[in-house]
This record gives sequence, C-alpha cells and structure tokens, in this order.
Amino acid sequence: MLGGQGLLERYRAQIEQGLRTALAGEGALCRIGRYHIGLEDEQGAPSQAFGKFIRPALVLFTTEQLGGIANDALPAAIGLELIHSFSLIHDDIQDGDRTRRGRPAVWAIWGIAEAINAGDYLHSVALGTAAKGGLNSVQELSRATTAMIEGQSLDLSFEARFVDESDYLGMVDRKTGALFGCAFALGGIGAGLAAAVPTDVIAGLRELGREVGRAFQIQDDLLGIWGDGNALGKPIGSDIRQRKKSFPVAVAYARAQDEDRNRLESVYRADAVGQTDVNAIVDLMSCLGVREDVEAAVDRHSARALDLVQALPFPEDGRRELIALIETLARRDR
Amino acid sequence: MLGGQGLLERYRAQIEQGLRTALAGEGALCRIGRYHIGLEDEQGAPSQAFGKFIRPALVLFTTEQLGGIANDALPAAIGLELIHSFSLIHDDIQDGDRTRRGRPAVWAIWGIAEAINAGDYLHSVALGTAAKGGLNSVQELSRATTAMIEGQSLDLSFEARFVDESDYLGMVDRKTGALFGCAFALGGIGAGLAAAVPTDVIAGLRELGREVGRAFQIQDDLLGIWGDGNALGKPIGSDIRQRKKSFPVAVAYARAQDEDRNRLESVYRADAVGQTDVNAIVDLMSCLGVREDVEAAVDRHSARALDLVQALPFPEDGRRELIALIETLARRDR
Repeated sequence: MLGGQGLLERYRAQIEQGLRTALAGEGALCRIGRYHIGLEDEQGAPSQAFGKFIRPALVLFTTEQLGGIANDALPAAIGLELIHSFSLIHDDIQDGDRTRRGRPAVWAIWGIAEAINAGDYLHSVALGTAAKGGLNSVQELSRATTAMIEGQSLDLSFEARFVDESDYLGMVDRKTGALFGCAFALGGIGAGLAAAVPTDVIAGLRELGREVGRAFQIQDDLLGIWGDGNALGKPIGSDIRQRKKSFPVAVAYARAQDEDRNRLESVYRADAVGQTDVNAIVDLMSCLGVREDVEAAVDRHSARALDLVQALPFPEDGRRELIALIETLARRDR
Repeated sequence: MLGGQGLLERYRAQIEQGLRTALAGEGALCRIGRYHIGLEDEQGAPSQAFGKFIRPALVLFTTEQLGGIANDALPAAIGLELIHSFSLIHDDIQDGDRTRRGRPAVWAIWGIAEAINAGDYLHSVALGTAAKGGLNSVQELSRATTAMIEGQSLDLSFEARFVDESDYLGMVDRKTGALFGCAFALGGIGAGLAAAVPTDVIAGLRELGREVGRAFQIQDDLLGIWGDGNALGKPIGSDIRQRKKSFPVAVAYARAQDEDRNRLESVYRADAVGQTDVNAIVDLMSCLGVREDVEAAVDRHSARALDLVQALPFPEDGRRELIALIETLARRDR
C-alpha cells in the first residue's frame, strides 16, 4: 500500500455515507449528483466509482489531529467535496471534456443546460450542508469557493495568451489551492480552532493547502501531457489538444526561442490541434528539458508543504501520515 | 406613480450601494457581475440599467415592518439579489436568450464558459454576503436557492412533455416562489424573528412569497406571449418560439381537443418554430379563451397573497403599501 492511503481509507465510508445523505432525494438533480460523484451508475444502480475524497479526508484528519472529533467536521467536509464536485461538472462543460474518470461527463449524458443546473445544485447543497457545521465553516467554504471560481476564470483567460510561472501560480493558488487550503482550515475550525487557538495556526493550515495545491496541480498538468491515458480515463496529450496553458507550457514558452517559440505560438493559436501537432509539442518539450523542470517544481512545492507540516501542532504520527500522503499525491500517476 | 413603487424606491439606493460593495473587485468576474446587474455598461462605465430590486426591497421592508432595522437585513437582501442575478445569467445560457432587459446577455458578450463562471461567482458571493447576516440567513437563502435550482430543472424537463396546472405550480413554487418566500422570511429573520417570534409568522411569510411568486410568474408568462416586445426588451411571442411550457400552454393544452390538440403537439414537437407557427398558436389560444383564464389565475393568486398580507403583524400603513405593490406586480406590462 502506498504511503498515506491509510489516511484516505480511514474516512472513506464516513464520507461516502455523508454524501449519500446530502444527496438522498429522488429528484433529477440528486440523481445526477450521485452519478457524478460515482455513488450510482447512469441507471441509478449503486456504484463505487468515486474518487479518492482527498479534500474531505483532509478535513476530518486535521480535526482529529488537533484533538477534535471527526464527526463535528463532517458537514464541512461533505460541503467541501460537493463544491469540488460542482466545479468538475461545470469544468467539463467549459472544456468540452466528454469523459471524467473513464465515465461519460454529466453534460455528455444530460445535456449542457441540465448539467449547469446539476453543478448549481451541488454548489447550493454544499453551502447548506456546511452551514450545519456553523457559521465559521460556511464562511470559510464560501470564501474558498469564490477564490476557486476566480481561478477558473483566470485559467480560461489564459486561452488567449501565454503566461509565465507567476501568472500560473496566481491562477492555481485560486483554482486548486483555495480548496486544499480550505480543507485544512475547515479541519481546524472543526476542532474548535477558530475560537480557541491562535489564528496563525489557521493561516499556516491555509498556506499548507496552497503548497499542496501547487504540487498537486503541477503534477496534474504533468499527467495531462505525459500521463498514461488509460489510467487517467482521458486521451493522452489532451491538455495540448485543448491548448491548456498548463505549467509545462509556461516553462516551455519561457525556454523556447526563435523557431521553437514560433512553433508553440502557431500551434496554440490554431483553430484545431491534430495528433501531429500534439506529438510535435511533446517532442519540443523533451528537447527543452521541460519535464525535468516540471518535476522539480512539484518537488519544490512538496518540500515546502512538508516543512509546513513539520510546524503543525499535530502528534508525530499524524505528521508522518500526512507527509506520506502529500508525497504520494505529488508522485501519483493518475 | 403606480402603487407600491414608493416602497421599491425607498430602498433602491441602499441596495445599489450594497451590490456595488459586494462586487467591488477589479477582477473579470466582478466586472461581469456589475454589468449583468446593470451597475456598469459593457466598457465598465457606471450605469443605472438595473431592475426593480423587488426581492431585496421586500427583505428590508419586511424587517422594518416587523420592528427591525433595515440595515441589519442588508447582507441577506444583497445575497438574495445576487442569487436571483446568478440564476438569470445561467438561465440565459440555458434558454439561448441573447438579450436581457434590452442589453446583450452575459454569454452573448463573454461566451458560455465565462458566463458559467460569472453565475457561479455571484452564487458564491451571494452566500458569503448572506453569511454576514448570520447563520439563520445563510441557511434560509441556501434552502431557497436549492429549491429554485430544482424548479429550473423541472422547467427544463417540461420541454419534453405537456404539463397540467398542478405540474406547473409545482415547478413555479420552486423556480419563482422560493426566492419570493425567502425574501419575506429573510425580512423576518432580519427583525430577529427566528428566535423571538412564533415560527408560524415565518411560515406565513413563506406562504405569502409563494402566492406572490405564482401571481408574478403567471403574469410573466402572460407577457411572454401577449406582452409588448419593445417594453420587455425581447421579441414578442418568444416563449412560443422557444416552446416554453408556460402557464398559458398548460391551459391551452387542457382545453384543446382533437385537431387543436394535434396542432399544439406538432408545433411544440417541431425542430424549429417560425413566425407563422407563433401566430397560429396565439390565434388558437385566443379561440380557446386562454388569456382570460390566465388573467383569472393571476387574480386568484394575487387575492390569496392579499389575504395573507392582512394576517401579517404589520402596521396598517405597511399592509396597504405591500398590497399596492403586489397589485402593481401582478398587473405589470414589462
């Protein structure tokens, strides 16, 4: 078993049950929500096609490490996972991605209009669920959600231009880091931190989330170009075909000169990108040593995250477990 | 001046200022939000193209009538208006409507992907703003938002079939009634009702909102067929062209027999509806006396709303003002 998987497995049943409860209705949107999360298949039969539930597990884990009771943080944890889920439904519409974790995307089955509703529904249920955990939780989650949506908008704006590492990080800290930061902070709130403990612990938890988010997303970007298409449930090189200005592209553009830069510009400005173009860009990135740089960036942000973990007021065992999980996430292949 | 307009005007500046504060950022999504609400034009210049702010005005008015201070309810009122605004952005995408109150819809300017983000952003900012009014407010708003989205999904499902009056009311109580009910209930919460006053007052406020929502939406449906296209800022007969299963269609389908019913079915199942079809349906509705039935339904639900107003613990002046507003809304021509 990979390091840190035990942490995820420990909370999985509790999270699954919490999600089933939050989406227990018979209405169309509840059903779509259960399908999207992987609690049911397309026909409504029970399924266990869900993801790793990383974010809600981090909430519950953090609460326990800080001396609280996981169940107190469950509404916030479920709310956070529902926010993440809603963002993926809308993301797939925006990117035109027809598959998600090897299954048809919601919009590919129910159409764009109803998929917009389904995302909106999970968003609203998420905040309502988090509110059961109290005002601090719902405020923390709403702040992070707002930041995540800003990140999504920034990411979209990158379609029109090349970006540098600083632009990229500004986007990713919102799009990915905000929810990871929120996971740790909600864990703190679940343990009663907001009132009782110095707020710099909450600030440290948010910063940890930001670094985890950077490592996680840059690894995601790496997989979007060099990952195994079968394991990921989406076609290889798909980030290039969709001309996403992911981290490797920022590195490649900074390194490329003259002809190479022209090549990048022409592919990323074309109306359609074929397999030949995808291959050419992958080759160009290899020549420029981009992959090594990307891997180094993952390592750099993971290392910062690990330093921040060391400073947390967690028992030694908990710190070790969290470090193992972060290392696994940063090295995952799917 | 029409009855009840004074009520709306009294709170307009306070609501406008609250919305400007909630959307004060320089980011793209704040800008789009300000454009959509009518606080700015497309280039970002200040504008006063906004709507009537009915829902937030009802929040503040209700708080004052129940002895509270309008400012205490302002976060909830602004949150409610932002929820209404988010729903319109997504609605326009879903319906393919290129104009909204005579101006280009958000998606027609910024594209569908960014318009989805803009709606999501207002949704999230709405809950965050309402949370400043306390846990009761954010819970009330989140519940109503969830119901509204369910109504939107039901409305969409009506595209595939004809519906009767009961189906229609089940949809409209969610799609429109939930936010009106929420407006009155948030007003009660703003006046400290949730804790201090019997909850049947809150229940009465929600029921009042439901009846106002029915009258308002059925009148809206009437305008969608017989309204003045110029005053509405959208082409006349547009609800027929879009084959919306609005209230008049439910009435027409219930009354139509044999050939007439076949005609309705063929138009509402066609791939495209031309002006000839639109005219034919309007004529058919006239023959069937549909307009009279629709007007009677508006009157019926207005009358119920007025009865409910009489039972509210408001000062006599306030009841009179609210009655005048409801009568104006139910008879509006735009």
